[in-house]
Amino acid sequence: MEKSFVIGVDLGGTNTVFGVVDARGTILYNGTIETGKYEDINDYVSALAKGLKELIEKAGGPETIRGIGVGAPMGNYFSGCIEFAANLPWKGKIEFAKMLSEKTFQLPVMLTNDANAAAIGEMAYGVARGMKDFIEITLGTGLGSGIVIGGSLVYGSDGFAGELGHVIIRRDGRTCGCGRKGCLEAYASATGVARTAREFLLTRTDVSLLRELNPEMITSKNVYEAAVKGDKLALEIFDYTGEILGEALADFIAFSTPEAIILFGGLANAGDMILNPVKKSLDENVLRMYKGKTKLLLSQLKESDAAVLGASALGWEAK
Amino acid sequence: MEKSFVIGVDLGGTNTVFGVVDARGTILYNGTIETGKYEDINDYVSALAKGLKELIEKAGGPETIRGIGVGAPMGNYFSGCIEFAANLPWKGKIEFAKMLSEKTFQLPVMLTNDANAAAIGEMAYGVARGMKDFIEITLGTGLGSGIVIGGSLVYGSDGFAGELGHVIIRRDGRTCGCGRKGCLEAYASATGVARTAREFLLTRTDVSLLRELNPEMITSKNVYEAAVKGDKLALEIFDYTGEILGEALADFIAFSTPEAIILFGGLANAGDMILNPVKKSLDENVLRMYKGKTKLLLSQLKESDAAVLGASALGWEAK
Repeated sequence: MEKSFVIGVDLGGTNTVFGVVDARGTILYNGTIETGKYEDINDYVSALAKGLKELIEKAGGPETIRGIGVGAPMGNYFSGCIEFAANLPWKGKIEFAKMLSEKTFQLPVMLTNDANAAAIGEMAYGVARGMKDFIEITLGTGLGSGIVIGGSLVYGSDGFAGELGHVIIRRDGRTCGCGRKGCLEAYASATGVARTAREFLLTRTDVSLLRELNPEMITSKNVYEAAVKGDKLALEIFDYTGEILGEALADFIAFSTPEAIILFGGLANAGDMILNPVKKSLDENVLRMYKGKTKLLLSQLKESDAAVLGASALGWEAK
Repeated sequence: MEKSFVIGVDLGGTNTVFGVVDARGTILYNGTIETGKYEDINDYVSALAKGLKELIEKAGGPETIRGIGVGAPMGNYFSGCIEFAANLPWKGKIEFAKMLSEKTFQLPVMLTNDANAAAIGEMAYGVARGMKDFIEITLGTGLGSGIVIGGSLVYGSDGFAGELGHVIIRRDGRTCGCGRKGCLEAYASATGVARTAREFLLTRTDVSLLRELNPEMITSKNVYEAAVKGDKLALEIFDYTGEILGEALADFIAFSTPEAIILFGGLANAGDMILNPVKKSLDENVLRMYKGKTKLLLSQLKESDAAVLGASALGWEAK
């Protein structure tokens, strides 16, 4: 029987979403389990395998499945392990790909982190189809990245390359969750936008809709909603975020000179409000010889499906 | 007849050096012409071809040569052109590979810039033998780089990737020759060391051997010589240079997580005086998950031969 389908698994801290995907990127069947409910990794893998088997039956049995791709925090492509993921219930180094394969018809399981999975998904089903050199930037709670060079994802010597959220963009700047200061992620992410809002509200006196909110509770969504209403301070928060992100992207171009940089995730949904200041700053900051060479694009992956699609795209790599 | 040799051409602003190289990286025959003497590119190519033909005869004729590799400022691997090189006598875009091939027995000619050539040479004959992921940093008048990922040099979408000397390491810092501010090259290069010396002499009052020199004429060599004599200020200049370079390398690791970063060129010859502060700073600044993974090494290419060897290594790529 032809192996026409792949399975994508998006392993998040709260939920795990999975689906059977065809070669066009259509999710045919899907399911979900609560990651947080399983304190024992064996119980979790059993529950996930049970969910996957139900979908596999619907798809026509394991013979129809080429492979299982998993996007997980700290997922290592080379070892198939999840290594010391801070926001998952299981500690240490987990031989995840091996465990899941053993409980799921011995199907090949490929593992990487969620931002890399998004990049692979973009290449298989999204705006990066046909591209050989691009960088996917995922703007969620944090800032993740997947770098593609010569048509291959860059995993580095250790399987964990491409942590562009932790490039230092403001030396001795904001403290970051990683324990250092001035990381790009502390500015250009949902959390970063909320921090900028709090800073601006504290250090400036402008009238703003945001002043009606408890500063400690402000989210990037609040800022977005205020900006949509034309709130000047909120718009400036996006300008500031975009400016910093553009500066960083200009440096990334000096590294791999990609054909495109693709923005994905929550913040990217702000559309032109974020895209325009990023473009302006990128153009002002990029080395002259690179000017105008790298396109700045928004992802074409539907956000609700993107994580599963991205992970599933890894499944096609199975031999 | 077996194609046992390659030719390396190092095209510099002042001189062009070239040689016939065997598979072990031994330069068997070599020659040189003055680049600056030829205002017309056609005259230059004719003179170079004449020089090469003499060596080719010595090596046993064109049948023994696999290919000609050229390292040149703004040399584009994809197009074989030299494009708008500021420090060469010829302006605009020059179809160099094609021109040289036509005058040199139609041998295949491969072109890239000098830092990329150094990286390829390091992989073929130097300390990067067997490595698939590394970054070569050339510390000369400026700072160049060649990035190798998965065993291939990163040329980017335009053939000009890997200008790590122009990553911004100090926002709004020193002006750079590229017209922007705060580029790594303005700090970590021979020119950068001399600028740091002038800054330190101006803003500080420490006793130093460097005070005996005309500040405008100070070179990195002066600083090195003073440092060797134990001059405290000179040593601090190397510490400062190394600290900034280490900060930048920590960011590069977040990009491609190479197995090694290899320092090459004038400044690298200062050995531990530059290596120790770079190591210290790199270790302090690198993201925790990468700590201790990337080796910091000195090039094993003999500097006088390195440019020709590096360029020659490109010749092996010829089919």
